[in-house]
Amino acid sequence: MSGIVSNFELTILGCNSAIQAFGRHPTSQVFSAYNQLYLIDCGEGTQFQLDKFHIKKSRINQIFISHLHGDHYYGLMGLLSSYRLHGRTEPLQVFCPIGTKEIVEVNLKHSKGQFVYPIEFYEIEDKPSHKIFEDKYIEVHTIPLNHKIATTGFLFVEKPRERNFIKEKIEEHQIPNEAINLIKEGNDFIGLDGKVIPYTELTTAPHPQRKYAYCSDTIYDESILPIIQGVDLLYHEATYLHSEELKAQQYWHSTAKQAATIAMKANAQSLMIGHYSSRYDNLDELLNEAKSVFSNSMLAIEGRTTEVSPTAP
Amino acid sequence: MSGIVSNFELTILGCNSAIQAFGRHPTSQVFSAYNQLYLIDCGEGTQFQLDKFHIKKSRINQIFISHLHGDHYYGLMGLLSSYRLHGRTEPLQVFCPIGTKEIVEVNLKHSKGQFVYPIEFYEIEDKPSHKIFEDKYIEVHTIPLNHKIATTGFLFVEKPRERNFIKEKIEEHQIPNEAINLIKEGNDFIGLDGKVIPYTELTTAPHPQRKYAYCSDTIYDESILPIIQGVDLLYHEATYLHSEELKAQQYWHSTAKQAATIAMKANAQSLMIGHYSSRYDNLDELLNEAKSVFSNSMLAIEGRTTEVSPTAP
Repeated sequence: MSGIVSNFELTILGCNSAIQAFGRHPTSQVFSAYNQLYLIDCGEGTQFQLDKFHIKKSRINQIFISHLHGDHYYGLMGLLSSYRLHGRTEPLQVFCPIGTKEIVEVNLKHSKGQFVYPIEFYEIEDKPSHKIFEDKYIEVHTIPLNHKIATTGFLFVEKPRERNFIKEKIEEHQIPNEAINLIKEGNDFIGLDGKVIPYTELTTAPHPQRKYAYCSDTIYDESILPIIQGVDLLYHEATYLHSEELKAQQYWHSTAKQAATIAMKANAQSLMIGHYSSRYDNLDELLNEAKSVFSNSMLAIEGRTTEVSPTAP
Repeated sequence: MSGIVSNFELTILGCNSAIQAFGRHPTSQVFSAYNQLYLIDCGEGTQFQLDKFHIKKSRINQIFISHLHGDHYYGLMGLLSSYRLHGRTEPLQVFCPIGTKEIVEVNLKHSKGQFVYPIEFYEIEDKPSHKIFEDKYIEVHTIPLNHKIATTGFLFVEKPRERNFIKEKIEEHQIPNEAINLIKEGNDFIGLDGKVIPYTELTTAPHPQRKYAYCSDTIYDESILPIIQGVDLLYHEATYLHSEELKAQQYWHSTAKQAATIAMKANAQSLMIGHYSSRYDNLDELLNEAKSVFSNSMLAIEGRTTEVSPTAP
C-alpha cells in the first residue's frame, strides 16, 4: 500500500487451546511493528517455536501475558532462563497479570538463580482499558476480557505518522531541504516571493493508524466493542463450533460464530480465529462458520505471518 | 537373553543441556520396566516429546525430578495440567527436590486451578542414598550428586526374580502343578518314592537383577561409585569435551572422559552420555572421547530406546 513502508504484522507461534494436539501448540504470537518484535503470550515450547520459525528471541524486548492459565504462560520461565544463558544484556519488560512475578521468583528461589539482564514486571490492573506501553512506533492498551480468571487482551495501535511530502514540489517551489520536515509536520511554506503554499498542497495525508487487537481467552462479550472498534485485524479466540455454545459458555470461551459476530460489530477489517479445541483435527468447519458471519475471516496457522493492513488480505 | 521375558529399557526424550539446540531438547527420559513407565526429569516440552514418540502419558504413574534447574523440570506444570485436562483419575507420585511442591502450588494459586486426580509429592532428602520407591518390579534409590544445587540421581534396581523351572522335569519326576511355584521359590521336591530332588536340579538360576543408574547433573565425583557399582547401564552427563575440563568444573558439570572414567571404575556394563552443551552440533567427538576410556559407550539420542541388559549392546 502506498505510503506504508514499515511492517505491521503478526506471526502465529501456537494456535491451539489447553492441550496440544495435531501438531498445534499452546498460545503464542509475535507481533511486529517497524521491525520491533513484541511477544504475546508464551505457552510451553514458545522458545522452540521461535527457533523453528527463525525468529531471533533476542530481538524481543516486551512480552505481554494475557492471563495465568498454563497454556498462555508455561513457556515464560524457559524463555527468561534462555535469555540469561544466551548472555542477554538488553532490558526486558513483561506486562502480565498479578501473580506472575511471584511465580517467577519462586522458581528462581529454588534454582538459586537470577537474571543477569534487567527485567521489569508490570502487573496489569484488570479494568478499565488503559495504556500500558508505548515506544516510538506503537501504543499498547489493555482490553479487559471476560474469562474464568483475570484476563487481558491487548490493542496495538500505530502512532500517528507524519504526512507524506510530494517530492516533485521541491523544484516547483524551490523548497530548501531544511523546510521539508516542518512542512510534513503541518506548516505552510512561504516562498521567496512571499507566496504562501499550504502544506496540504505539498503533502499527502499519512496512512491511517493501523491497529491489531488480541482477544484471548474470553466468553462472548460485547463490552469490548468500543475498545476494538475499527481495528485492521482482530484475533479472537474461537475454541468451539457454535454447536458447542453451552460448553463454550461453561468454560468461559467463545465459538467461531461469536468471534465473527464480534468482528462484524466492531467493524474490523479482518478476523483471525484461533485457540482451537483439541477436538478439532480439521479446522475448516470453524473457518466456514466464522466466514458465514464475517467474510474476511482466516485461521491462525502456526508459522504463518499476516500483514495487519487497512486493506483486508 | 534366555530367562528374560519382561522389558527393562530406557527411551530418551531430551538429551541436551540448558539451551535447546540442533533439534535437541532439555532433559527427559522414560524408563520402562515390566511395561511400567517411569518418567525421569521433565524439561520444557516433555509432553510434546512423549506425543512425538507415541508414548502414552497416561501410563506414567511416577515422575522423578533430579533437581530444580529449569532444563530438568520446566515441563512439569504442563504435564500435570494436561493430565487434569485429559481427565486423569489414576494417582500420580512425584519424587522431587524440596521446593517443587511450592512451585506447583504457586502456579495453581494464580490459575485458580487444582488437580482433580490424586497427586503426591515426595520431596527428597539430599543424602545419603536411600530407597524412595518400590513396586512389584523395581526399587528406586537416590544417588546423591554433586552439582551447584541439591541434585539427586536415581538407581533403578530390578527386584530379585524367582528361579526358572525346567519344564522337562515335570514328566521325569511326575511333579504336580501345585508344587512348581514352591520349587521356584527354592524348596526341594519329594517324589512319591520319597526321593528328595534338590530345587537346584529342577530349576535354573534367575537372571541377575538388572540395574539402571541415572546421573545428571554432576561434577566428576567418585563418591557415587559404591552406589552404582556393576550397573547394566549408566547414564552419566557429559556436558563438555575434556578440553573444557575447567569450564565443566566451573559449572558443576562433567566431561565425556570423566563420565567414561566413572563408568569404568563402577564396572558398568555400558555407558550412555548426554546433557550435551549447545556448543556441539556434531556429537561424534564426545562419543569418541568416552569410548577411548570406556568402549561400551553410546550417545543419548532422542527417540531411541536402549535395552538395559547384562549383555552390553
